[in-house]
Amino acid sequence: MSQITSIQNWLGNHEYDMAYISDWKTIAYLTGFSSNPMERVLALFIFPNQDPFIFAPALEVEAIKKSAWDFPVYGYLDHENPFALIKSHIEERVHNPQRWAVEKGNLTVERYEAVKAQYPDAQFVGDLTPFIQQQQLIKTPDEIAKLITAGEWADYAFTVGFDALAKGLTEQEVVAEIEYALMKKGIMHMSFDTIVQSGANAADPHGAPKKDLIKPNELCLFDLGVVCNGYVSDASRTVAFGEVDEKSKEIYKVCLEAQLAAQDAARPGVLAEELDKIARDIITKAGYGEYFNHRLGHGIGQTAHEYPSIMGGNKLELQPGMCFSIEPGIYIPGVAGVRIEDCVYVTEDGVKPFTTTSKELRTLPIK
Amino acid sequence: MSQITSIQNWLGNHEYDMAYISDWKTIAYLTGFSSNPMERVLALFIFPNQDPFIFAPALEVEAIKKSAWDFPVYGYLDHENPFALIKSHIEERVHNPQRWAVEKGNLTVERYEAVKAQYPDAQFVGDLTPFIQQQQLIKTPDEIAKLITAGEWADYAFTVGFDALAKGLTEQEVVAEIEYALMKKGIMHMSFDTIVQSGANAADPHGAPKKDLIKPNELCLFDLGVVCNGYVSDASRTVAFGEVDEKSKEIYKVCLEAQLAAQDAARPGVLAEELDKIARDIITKAGYGEYFNHRLGHGIGQTAHEYPSIMGGNKLELQPGMCFSIEPGIYIPGVAGVRIEDCVYVTEDGVKPFTTTSKELRTLPIK
Repeated sequence: MSQITSIQNWLGNHEYDMAYISDWKTIAYLTGFSSNPMERVLALFIFPNQDPFIFAPALEVEAIKKSAWDFPVYGYLDHENPFALIKSHIEERVHNPQRWAVEKGNLTVERYEAVKAQYPDAQFVGDLTPFIQQQQLIKTPDEIAKLITAGEWADYAFTVGFDALAKGLTEQEVVAEIEYALMKKGIMHMSFDTIVQSGANAADPHGAPKKDLIKPNELCLFDLGVVCNGYVSDASRTVAFGEVDEKSKEIYKVCLEAQLAAQDAARPGVLAEELDKIARDIITKAGYGEYFNHRLGHGIGQTAHEYPSIMGGNKLELQPGMCFSIEPGIYIPGVAGVRIEDCVYVTEDGVKPFTTTSKELRTLPIK
Repeated sequence: MSQITSIQNWLGNHEYDMAYISDWKTIAYLTGFSSNPMERVLALFIFPNQDPFIFAPALEVEAIKKSAWDFPVYGYLDHENPFALIKSHIEERVHNPQRWAVEKGNLTVERYEAVKAQYPDAQFVGDLTPFIQQQQLIKTPDEIAKLITAGEWADYAFTVGFDALAKGLTEQEVVAEIEYALMKKGIMHMSFDTIVQSGANAADPHGAPKKDLIKPNELCLFDLGVVCNGYVSDASRTVAFGEVDEKSKEIYKVCLEAQLAAQDAARPGVLAEELDKIARDIITKAGYGEYFNHRLGHGIGQTAHEYPSIMGGNKLELQPGMCFSIEPGIYIPGVAGVRIEDCVYVTEDGVKPFTTTSKELRTLPIK
């Protein structure tokens, strides 16, 4: 619970009366108890000098008591007003707290107003979102070990996917083979919807797999990751299903050069925006700059959407323990799409990837 | 786009200058374009008398243009300030809008403050959340047809799951069989994590499937649903894996009686809280009231978390076209858990279920 203590200290240092943690993912990070409450209220309240408590739907209370959380947990039933109950539990600790810290990146206006209804004088002066992001920015060795394990499962998923290609399947059927193989080994969640896109379908960087057959003599893009022990992986590989044309080989080569150059350059002291520029310059110089329409990378940890953001304008200096993706892409509408991605962690003098599947263009046989 | 028109009319009637739709699921409902932007900004802006526009991450723009949306769409790159760009597009339509309507149930304090930074005089006086909920409360015949199809896939999933039980599998392996069978038929998303819980594991109503073998001579609880054409299903069945003890049969019988009584009683004019009470009274009278620790049901449509909420204190009168779950449960810690659930739609004189798998206690052979 050392994470709780650091929030208590932060509250004390800023003279905040209390913190309202509203994001179930932050609660998982701070307490080890992980559950998405959907529209119900799951909240963690932390005070500078009193015991924290979890407020949860009644049907979650038993599970929280069985978890590593050893402070109070209070439940509510669906027909009860959660914020009136929350007030009664706060009053046992602090009378009429004025200066609140909240997660502005998560708290909805509706719940903000629900708190204001109970505490009309409350001032939401503290923003926990950047503080939590900062806490999560540098991963511990234990967290990196979990990310390495999640990466190994992504490598396994690639082998399953590449093997499946030979069978004359659709994009969706290849996804089914990958996720089934993982679930049979106890990996029950992907970190995002698995992407398998063949030929021109891959030119849509956020497109969903279709009922289209994997096209022979076209590139096929895989982007996938798993959730394992609360940490995620995220990696992309683009392979050739049979021999592909020169244009496809050309954009693959450019994309790989950009990916490797950024991965080689990444080390402590380099700025996030510099890394983005190294990859982007290579793609732009080759004439494909307009087809690389997203940032170079994003942070990774308990989700694939953490900090740091590796993009133009981000002057953050890389430090050991930061974990993020390096994923240039070239998407030519109607033609093809390539993305090559490893997530890495920063070491003392460089980076190491969580995924080790070869990035050389792999040509899979058409059977 | 008639949904857009009704929001335009609502804005005009309330003298709001504009609406900011921030929830990607609402955007899907209003425009047909469905994509979860994660931490990026995807927003829909609607004005009483001007054309609406979508503001989206650059990498989504092509897909939106290809969708049924035929109003403007504007993109932004990851390093740009989305709210400064949004302001420039608003200014093309309305100068300095004062009275805003937002989705208070979705908009975060962070984005609220980002808008305020661009428009210090903006007043967030209108709440679209209840208006959208009201719009979605009564389903059209087309929506009900989609919900019926989603229900048929849930019935199919039960047959796969029941068949899998005989094979000496773990809870997780049964989930794998169910989801693989669905994906092979093109059903790529479940509406929530599939639940398969055997014996005492089922006493945790939000628990995840474990690596435990399905225990012979115990009850096994299935709770699952699919996403199909943008609409979802959600149904629960509890079956006996071999002969089970009298206690298990007893709680099954009570739960089924409660489920059927509520389903029989549901019709236009009945209050939501009355329906909850009908089921709860049966379970309480049998001595299991403390073990039914959630509401009777929730609305269903594009998600399994819509209105109406079927719970104590909700005096909403049921009307034709409302769609919701009826799902009493009895969860005895350390012993067993039973839940029986159909989602239904209200007709002129009763309700019809979306799922038709038999609710009589089914005893599956141990092979």
